[in-house]
Amino acid sequence: MTDVQNQPDTRGIKIKRTGVTKVHLPFLISDGDEVQQVAAQIRFTVALPENLRGTHMSRLTEILTDWTARPIKIPDLEKILLDALEKLSTDFAAITLVFKFFLKKFSPVSEKFSLSSVDCELCGELLRGERMKFTLGLIVPFTSLCPCSKEISNFGAHNQRSVCRVKLTFKNFDDVSIKNFVRLIEAQGSAEIYPLLKREDEKFVTEAAYKNPKFVEDILRDVVLVLRRSENLEAFEVECENFESIHNHNAFASHAEILS
Amino acid sequence: MTDVQNQPDTRGIKIKRTGVTKVHLPFLISDGDEVQQVAAQIRFTVALPENLRGTHMSRLTEILTDWTARPIKIPDLEKILLDALEKLSTDFAAITLVFKFFLKKFSPVSEKFSLSSVDCELCGELLRGERMKFTLGLIVPFTSLCPCSKEISNFGAHNQRSVCRVKLTFKNFDDVSIKNFVRLIEAQGSAEIYPLLKREDEKFVTEAAYKNPKFVEDILRDVVLVLRRSENLEAFEVECENFESIHNHNAFASHAEILS
Amino acid sequence: MTDVQNQPDTRGIKIKRTGVTKVHLPFLISDGDEVQQVAAQIRFTVALPENLRGTHMSRLTEILTDWTARPIKIPDLEKILLDALEKLSTDFAAITLVFKFFLKKFSPVSEKFSLSSVDCELCGELLRGERMKFTLGLIVPFTSLCPCSKEISNFGAHNQRSVCRVKLTFKNFDDVSIKNFVRLIEAQGSAEIYPLLKREDEKFVTEAAYKNPKFVEDILRDVVLVLRRSENLEAFEVECENFESIHNHNAFASHAEILS
Amino acid sequence: MTDVQNQPDTRGIKIKRTGVTKVHLPFLISDGDEVQQVAAQIRFTVALPENLRGTHMSRLTEILTDWTARPIKIPDLEKILLDALEKLSTDFAAITLVFKFFLKKFSPVSEKFSLSSVDCELCGELLRGERMKFTLGLIVPFTSLCPCSKEISNFGAHNQRSVCRVKLTFKNFDDVSIKNFVRLIEAQGSAEIYPLLKREDEKFVTEAAYKNPKFVEDILRDVVLVLRRSENLEAFEVECENFESIHNHNAFASHAEILS
Repeated sequence: MTDVQNQPDTRGIKIKRTGVTKVHLPFLISDGDEVQQVAAQIRFTVALPENLRGTHMSRLTEILTDWTARPIKIPDLEKILLDALEKLSTDFAAITLVFKFFLKKFSPVSEKFSLSSVDCELCGELLRGERMKFTLGLIVPFTSLCPCSKEISNFGAHNQRSVCRVKLTFKNFDDVSIKNFVRLIEAQGSAEIYPLLKREDEKFVTEAAYKNPKFVEDILRDVVLVLRRSENLEAFEVECENFESIHNHNAFASHAEILS
Repeated sequence: MTDVQNQPDTRGIKIKRTGVTKVHLPFLISDGDEVQQVAAQIRFTVALPENLRGTHMSRLTEILTDWTARPIKIPDLEKILLDALEKLSTDFAAITLVFKFFLKKFSPVSEKFSLSSVDCELCGELLRGERMKFTLGLIVPFTSLCPCSKEISNFGAHNQRSVCRVKLTFKNFDDVSIKNFVRLIEAQGSAEIYPLLKREDEKFVTEAAYKNPKFVEDILRDVVLVLRRSENLEAFEVECENFESIHNHNAFASHAEILS
Repeated sequence: MTDVQNQPDTRGIKIKRTGVTKVHLPFLISDGDEVQQVAAQIRFTVALPENLRGTHMSRLTEILTDWTARPIKIPDLEKILLDALEKLSTDFAAITLVFKFFLKKFSPVSEKFSLSSVDCELCGELLRGERMKFTLGLIVPFTSLCPCSKEISNFGAHNQRSVCRVKLTFKNFDDVSIKNFVRLIEAQGSAEIYPLLKREDEKFVTEAAYKNPKFVEDILRDVVLVLRRSENLEAFEVECENFESIHNHNAFASHAEILS
Repeated sequence: MTDVQNQPDTRGIKIKRTGVTKVHLPFLISDGDEVQQVAAQIRFTVALPENLRGTHMSRLTEILTDWTARPIKIPDLEKILLDALEKLSTDFAAITLVFKFFLKKFSPVSEKFSLSSVDCELCGELLRGERMKFTLGLIVPFTSLCPCSKEISNFGAHNQRSVCRVKLTFKNFDDVSIKNFVRLIEAQGSAEIYPLLKREDEKFVTEAAYKNPKFVEDILRDVVLVLRRSENLEAFEVECENFESIHNHNAFASHAEILS
């Protein structure tokens, strides 16, 4: 059977990324001493040399299928990418896994246990001969309470659910803790949020937010400050978005930084 | 050229709805004395008799294309459906148009003008020989402020953006005003929301919501009460959803009623 | 602390469904002799008597949190709902779990193993004193190849990815197999699809689809025929949608039936 | 009333982008000699100096409201941004408008008229004292037919809907034609697609695609070649994605280039 993908190509264009996207597979993700089974959406691509017509995409799906059964720590992403370099005879490979990561939460007063979900993205890129470049993406929810609304109103203050989206690139990815970065970021809103709150907890969260009013810009700056203090980061991007309770649109702020 | 759609079918199954969906077209929608050009997403289907294999779907797209240039009042949907009955030789046709409908808003104190968007769905169904059955769908945003949080907290109260989704079926659709139903529903939250608020307006909205705390169930019941008083309705479905600022999930309530 | 939810309500409206929605939690779903950990999106609601102002929604989250650790067979949904009837002192409860369900697939010629994902929805509704009403929702993908295009063209035929969405209500839900219904439905397209296909498999799937051309109406009718033969069903709804490769919109057909 | 936004900030962080997002407004977009009313989703941000606490976001909504009534050519985006620099006393502003753009299409044989929709994004960024940097984003659909499947199969070939997403940055944006770039890109698939096709057209499109098989990598490379020949471009990013009819995932390729 003709291998059409293997035909020569004369257009002279090396393609940086070609492969499969929106693949859904279960993965076992290790974070610290915990293993979570997640339902991941995956993009898995490789570079295609300029002299070849197409990629053997089924090999990418084969590699992914192999890895669904084994616990994956972040450094294992490098092994997946090395596998791709070899099986597809190329010099660059990239993988992105997007999934819901579940975090144990205890409500602030009654200490009731529940599980909170955070959108998590693990992204590895490997150029042959170098170490993998690893980026952790998180979308972390919390409450924000408007300082202006509090200041000018005789009572109350508008507040709302907000998210902080970060993309964190690491100097060394061996011991990155997803959970710790979630905790770091969720602490920068006006108050943390919880799946399960009894009345005494709801009072606590309401008052905590009221005592700690923050604009979307305040939250962004506070996230920037804690990320700058994080020793292991090489670069970061931050976006904060408030789903304004007094508008049908959102307030937004973003910032990116390369650390030395 | 063979007309494969016209081949006989022996499976004995009359299909209630078959046609095109996720068609995007501009439409001119008349509401009261105003005409808005909208970008509509459309589903347009007809019944297929049990003895025929397929529908001539291109005729549906042709009919839609014909109607993109002319202002459409709600009763015109019946003409579109009659067109479908005739051109597709069938006894049932249905159309759904989904679009952003823009509403003039003036902020409550400074009276600044802006445009608010509401998700709107017009749905017509026509059985040959009967009048069209018309359903208006709306997704209307507003603020909700939690009565429990206000009561138990020493200061502040959690609040958030909420939506009310309604599906309204009419006895008589000749004079339905989209705008009036939006106004009716947005008045049932803790406070209306606006695209444009200066500081004096923000103070007003914050305090208005604080003075008018409502659970998702309160809002649902108040919407039910105003819809029951609406003379022209035959039936309604209501869903309210609060994007809780203290949780990463939503509070929800729904209700449906047939009016006599 | 005042129990504001427990305040009397005088509007005289019993609410059929109120509770939490868009909760995300991991669940262990048993299907046949297999247990899958899934990331579920959940709606969990109860009826609210007309004389009470609000629902104690935190109790719903508590019940859900209790059930994240234990394997759930479909009949266990009834236990979750009974728990809700008791802990919320009400006479009706409903739960919907939506998640990716993974299915083992072996490619048709090379027999390579991979995992295919199907969108799955489990919905239980319980009225005190009755048995639970159970509905299984599935969104099953496959290929469709157009009979008209094949017939009129000198070579080739347009084909595309399609989905069939079903909602199946059961007489008896004790032994419902999710997997078996997926297999039943995916067999009704022009050809099954696979995450992993080597060249000999791709040839097989391409030719299989070409030999088995089906309109969206053909697929709908064939799904209706196999569902009618399924002994345990009480009612079903079917929607088929082809993501037409020659249009930027979709072809659609739907049908609903109550079986005696 | 205190101007809380105007309070001094000591964290020493200049924020590059802060403002409003997910604003929905109607806009009148001029392209060549045509004006289209579109329903736009908008992000509008400005830089916030390091010594100020917050942005006066209502001014951004005011500026947008002002511009909903007037036809906007691409160079007018610069005026909107200049307005923002002035009214918010800052040195950087950025705007992104996302909307459905409608294109006249005539079917290839019967020449039937219809309107095709393309996702369009206009993005302007202005640093005080410089010219605006303008980026045009497009998501253009077409058919792709697999060369491997055609080669190895005795009959037929799998094909599917595909999209090409581009981000084009211009040297000079005065005469950019949205329509022309859509036409350029849609010509690179295996065949163009149309909202309205009669049987003779469907035969034409089916055979055209079969005669012009292309991998996702082929399409990407052909788009790269035509963009390189486009005199006015400074840089481009291209992503191609095939919604594979034989898989439940997509084939993907991407490339970015800066032109000299």
